[in-house]
Amino acid sequence: MIANGTLPHRAVVEHLVRQAVYQRLGRALPTPATGPNPLVVNVSARHCHLTQDTVETLFGKGHQLTVHKWLYQEGQFAAKETLTLIGPRSRVISNLRILGPCRNLNQVELAYTDGIALGFELPLRISGNIKGTLGCMLMGPAGFFEMPEGVIRALRHVHMSPDDASFYGVKAGEEMKLKIGGPCGLSLEKMLVRVDKSFKLEVHIDTDEGNACNLQPETPCELIS
Amino acid sequence: MIANGTLPHRAVVEHLVRQAVYQRLGRALPTPATGPNPLVVNVSARHCHLTQDTVETLFGKGHQLTVHKWLYQEGQFAAKETLTLIGPRSRVISNLRILGPCRNLNQVELAYTDGIALGFELPLRISGNIKGTLGCMLMGPAGFFEMPEGVIRALRHVHMSPDDASFYGVKAGEEMKLKIGGPCGLSLEKMLVRVDKSFKLEVHIDTDEGNACNLQPETPCELIS
Repeated sequence: MIANGTLPHRAVVEHLVRQAVYQRLGRALPTPATGPNPLVVNVSARHCHLTQDTVETLFGKGHQLTVHKWLYQEGQFAAKETLTLIGPRSRVISNLRILGPCRNLNQVELAYTDGIALGFELPLRISGNIKGTLGCMLMGPAGFFEMPEGVIRALRHVHMSPDDASFYGVKAGEEMKLKIGGPCGLSLEKMLVRVDKSFKLEVHIDTDEGNACNLQPETPCELIS
Repeated sequence: MIANGTLPHRAVVEHLVRQAVYQRLGRALPTPATGPNPLVVNVSARHCHLTQDTVETLFGKGHQLTVHKWLYQEGQFAAKETLTLIGPRSRVISNLRILGPCRNLNQVELAYTDGIALGFELPLRISGNIKGTLGCMLMGPAGFFEMPEGVIRALRHVHMSPDDASFYGVKAGEEMKLKIGGPCGLSLEKMLVRVDKSFKLEVHIDTDEGNACNLQPETPCELIS
């Protein structure tokens, strides 16, 4: 396994190569390439965030999440552990991926397609704001956990550093647009800006959004403020 | 069952009411409401079009498709009959709806999510242009049909009459944009314009697109040329 952070992301390499090539050619960089950081757009499949207590209820006393794949945001990972989710109408989603490290709340992030499969309307919420949302039953190899609330469709958002925010002329809490190119391109509106020193410039779109435009690694994407 | 065309579509009623209310108030109509026809946006789930021969192979000699639900385009219907599709990697989609009336070609229109479930990359094609695409096996109660080609993700398109085309200032074969509002709105690019005297103004989006923006009956939509 590759340790977290030892290899730069494809987008970072492309960003550097693009800058070098344009400089060599003595030509002006296209606007998106002049930013301090490359824009990375990743598709997030449905997943959940759990507390350490919940992990232990589901996987056994003292169990620690293990890394399946490091994600683009520093220190975040897809865990090897997956769950079975039993929805409010007793319908099931298997192999729900857990993202680590553990947080101080339990939250399940689904796409609307998953909500339809489970048979109820998902509330659209900012990650972390789960008050009054429906819950579900989670099933792991060591037990069940009845999650009283926290099943949401996460509001679209973009992670960025203060440098990126200043480059795009936006502030935390404002909204941007993500234009995705290609033969069935689209523009996602109302993308909430989240700013933190630790954030790399990244948009997570969900599987519905990714499949609506058939997002591929080479599909051009542009953030518009 | 309501016979085809006896009741106007909700959008038509809304269009008329909106025009009457604004006139009553002595206020100018918002631009989309000044068009000759209301814009209808419907989500099309995966479906297929079949020839009469194929229907007979699958459902028995002399079988005629029966109407489950009339669609917005005049004379088009979702049939009661559904099929099982067996993909090139032996994975299955059940209850694939047939749209009637029969056509002179066999074509299956899936969303990219379905393509992923079946395990292959769907080609993006204008409906009817299926040359060189992958086929599949179709299974009905009376037999199998090996479809040599025709499994596609249909290119986005908008149906309109010559009056609508002239209102929007577009010609057949040109592209428009569909802006869908709401809390997770988006704009679909590269929507092919199809013009025919018989067409009502309508965009079909697929389930991925509909779920990416959680399209509801009251979601505002606007066609932009």
